[in-house]
Amino acid sequence: MRTLVLGGDGYLGWPTALHLSQHGHDVAIADNFVRRQYDHELGVHSLVPIEPLHTRVAAWRELTGKDIAVFSGDLTDAEFTYGMVRDFQPETIVHFAEQRAAPYSMIDRQHAVYTQVNNVVGTLNVLYAMGEIDRDIHLVKLGTMGEYGTPNIDIEEGYIEFTCRTWGLRATDLNQGIVYGQQTDATALDPRLATRFDYDAVFGTVLNRFVIQAVLGHPLTVYGSGGQTRGLIDIRDTVECIRLATEHPAAAGEFRVFNQMTESMSIAEIAKTIAENHGESVEVEYLEGPRVEADQHYYHVVHTGLVDLGLEPHLLSDTLLESLFAIAAAHRDRVDLAAMRPTVNWRETANPRGGSWR
Amino acid sequence: MRTLVLGGDGYLGWPTALHLSQHGHDVAIADNFVRRQYDHELGVHSLVPIEPLHTRVAAWRELTGKDIAVFSGDLTDAEFTYGMVRDFQPETIVHFAEQRAAPYSMIDRQHAVYTQVNNVVGTLNVLYAMGEIDRDIHLVKLGTMGEYGTPNIDIEEGYIEFTCRTWGLRATDLNQGIVYGQQTDATALDPRLATRFDYDAVFGTVLNRFVIQAVLGHPLTVYGSGGQTRGLIDIRDTVECIRLATEHPAAAGEFRVFNQMTESMSIAEIAKTIAENHGESVEVEYLEGPRVEADQHYYHVVHTGLVDLGLEPHLLSDTLLESLFAIAAAHRDRVDLAAMRPTVNWRETANPRGGSWR
Repeated sequence: MRTLVLGGDGYLGWPTALHLSQHGHDVAIADNFVRRQYDHELGVHSLVPIEPLHTRVAAWRELTGKDIAVFSGDLTDAEFTYGMVRDFQPETIVHFAEQRAAPYSMIDRQHAVYTQVNNVVGTLNVLYAMGEIDRDIHLVKLGTMGEYGTPNIDIEEGYIEFTCRTWGLRATDLNQGIVYGQQTDATALDPRLATRFDYDAVFGTVLNRFVIQAVLGHPLTVYGSGGQTRGLIDIRDTVECIRLATEHPAAAGEFRVFNQMTESMSIAEIAKTIAENHGESVEVEYLEGPRVEADQHYYHVVHTGLVDLGLEPHLLSDTLLESLFAIAAAHRDRVDLAAMRPTVNWRETANPRGGSWR
Repeated sequence: MRTLVLGGDGYLGWPTALHLSQHGHDVAIADNFVRRQYDHELGVHSLVPIEPLHTRVAAWRELTGKDIAVFSGDLTDAEFTYGMVRDFQPETIVHFAEQRAAPYSMIDRQHAVYTQVNNVVGTLNVLYAMGEIDRDIHLVKLGTMGEYGTPNIDIEEGYIEFTCRTWGLRATDLNQGIVYGQQTDATALDPRLATRFDYDAVFGTVLNRFVIQAVLGHPLTVYGSGGQTRGLIDIRDTVECIRLATEHPAAAGEFRVFNQMTESMSIAEIAKTIAENHGESVEVEYLEGPRVEADQHYYHVVHTGLVDLGLEPHLLSDTLLESLFAIAAAHRDRVDLAAMRPTVNWRETANPRGGSWR
């Protein structure tokens, strides 16, 4: 199967590309490297050091003999997108190439406009390329629920559903919960294959941040009452879900939605679990929330269709947490405490960018 | 009341500006004149001749002594939008400045991208201008249900609701039905004040097209079974609804939705009503539909909150239809038959632009 991973240099895109390559897919990656640029802009970095894409791809070839092609460019450039689809002739396109962080889009007007234009125009170009070049390609896309597990301001899904109905495209939309963890079978083969581990207030996910706070002996900071329930998923299940979705494609004209999450917990419960699992005593501290969200909202995760396709979920376990504590401990000298404080106040129309930059 | 009408040179924007001016509002219009540019692009024109905005505004001043300020520019230009809001200091912003025609957005990739960027970035800039300059401004916005009465691919509403909740903005979203008619009390004062009367396959509305077909003695062309039910509203009620919404603003932090429609009929019933009201015998012809829509979908119009605010609806009557027949008859020499044929096939990714252009 020929699979093109859009945003294949990112936190999930990279391990997904490796997982599919490992399972015999002929994989190509498209990326414009803007995720690395956000780090420079915000003055933050991944806790675990990551290699440039050319080093990653070379290491993978060296270790496995498998080639991953790279298309360097921007999906909002239609010529690039059409050219890539014509050239690589994918059977499946896995789309991780949207700006996913709600706090990033809320920094100010420019970041809101950038996020919308990047996400909407990029996805429209992909859909039109599929419509014009090959209507049989299966699109597997991460829903804008994103890693935050909260329904975001949702746009592209309407267009995707429309093009499935009108052009007969195939699409799988993955409503993804909060992803935790940093290693998959493939990335663990060599440090050069490591993926990001974000803990900053803009792109970091809450579970990763709690792990780092616990390792540093800091209180785990919960915003609001922590009563909001979130869907969760282990990064190893994320990449396996993507593989299952690609290998069991949606039918022509079908817009299929899967809930890509395997358990649900409140933020307070996540903090409690991590505090309890950590050997030394760790406190949980409740702070005023920078977001404007209902504190205890109704949350019902419909059982994911992915288990029917063969997913065997990794639930949040002591073993996983121990491995995360070890990763965080190994890189504790790289932690930038300033990066963890929320700097984007959603009630303001302009915010400092966070991290150590001002 | 200081009211800024965005898109105030258009079919509804212009009569709305006049209606508000007539009722004592201090009105300003913003427009980039792109609606007139679409006519040139598509090779079509309004059945009723319309004057340039500077002539319209001068005629209004001559007849009533009332001034309407004009801001000529594009909402996607944030500097323009912020400058205008700072300069005019509106209490209400009425927003008609989105590209509203689904068939226009479906011409090809460029038109889809243009529509999304224009609508999303334009509206984001307006919201940020309100958030930064004056959070007390009341936004009255036409929902993307638009004049077609069909739920369109909806985007901006999510952002508007979000900014109401987060920044305490006030907004009224008008879910508008198909607008019919061409004259209001104000536009009827002088031919120089006339608004557009569109009958082309891209921007025209179905009732207007049926009226012209009846006057020409052509069959009224219904696509599909005509079973789709639509909400309808007279143009005189549209402008009155806007006035009522502006003079009874939403509360701070409130995102209010009104159904701006006064009756509902199926397309086949509209055709039948027009055929019966027209003196000479007119046939109804059923053609294959260029759109991809469920033929008989569930449609339930919740009673509009606008009647509670004092709206006295004009229902589709013999008198209104007679006046429309007279308008169409007076301009029958301007009818371009080619413009009425649908040229945008939603199943294609690229379409001719319609009208007499190729």
